[in-house]
Amino acid sequence: MTNEELLGVTALNSWKLVIGRFDQNLAALTDEQLQRRVAPGKNRLFYLVGHLTAVHDRLFPMLGLGERLHPELDETYITNPDGAIPDPLSASDLKNAWTEVNSKLTAAFEEFTPLDWLKKHNAVSDEDFAKDPTRNRLAVVMSRTNHASFHSGQAILAK
Amino acid sequence: MTNEELLGVTALNSWKLVIGRFDQNLAALTDEQLQRRVAPGKNRLFYLVGHLTAVHDRLFPMLGLGERLHPELDETYITNPDGAIPDPLSASDLKNAWTEVNSKLTAAFEEFTPLDWLKKHNAVSDEDFAKDPTRNRLAVVMSRTNHASFHSGQAILAK
Repeated sequence: MTNEELLGVTALNSWKLVIGRFDQNLAALTDEQLQRRVAPGKNRLFYLVGHLTAVHDRLFPMLGLGERLHPELDETYITNPDGAIPDPLSASDLKNAWTEVNSKLTAAFEEFTPLDWLKKHNAVSDEDFAKDPTRNRLAVVMSRTNHASFHSGQAILAK
Repeated sequence: MTNEELLGVTALNSWKLVIGRFDQNLAALTDEQLQRRVAPGKNRLFYLVGHLTAVHDRLFPMLGLGERLHPELDETYITNPDGAIPDPLSASDLKNAWTEVNSKLTAAFEEFTPLDWLKKHNAVSDEDFAKDPTRNRLAVVMSRTNHASFHSGQAILAK
């Protein structure tokens, strides 16, 4: 493996570790436990799973990986706060959506060469990317990894 | 910049973003607010700042960057849970320790070449590193970045 390949693989491992830990915690939760709030008056676990699924689903078009799988989640879990709109999916359908989205993303990332990681993402203009080439796909995936860690820290409080 | 340099810089940006956001939130907190808990019965913000400072301080020997600055924090903020031992530092001294540790780490990371990122860290044996070269310094810094994001997600609940 070249140095640049090794850097890409190491960074991808960070995404895989965070998603893998979330997978394990999510699998252990009953439908009832998914309705728990992370703290009084704060988001339900169900909302956090919906939120992360929707945010990750947006990566398909943003990184040029194809069409979204679950655009129907945005209104409930991105546009609106918890409780504003009834959950559009059952607990088991939401768990399946989470797995489907992340499995497909991870499979795509595993095929990335170093040059693929360094490509522009679709939320930055050609002009801005020319000025700042760190606004690449790796930056987006690292940002989403931190975002998932951020909400994982909240989710663990409901245990 | 070469591709491997760009990958290293992009990954380092992820650390800088997470630490920078934590800095901003911490600077806005009064001594009184630092005593708030993230949720009833959970850790105080003060404890989380002590914990992250101690964990990051451990990176100096782990990454071969020199001696620790604040080994006195471990017993209170790593070995023991919140409340077991009185805080050894005042709020302002703790804020200073947080800034000192992270500024010095970030300055060291900014000097890393791609090969520096790919070096073995000191918590893995030569034999294990030969088997798995992703157990490198970049992996450690990405792991600590996720860990800081994890606790940032909790800290924000105390707002």
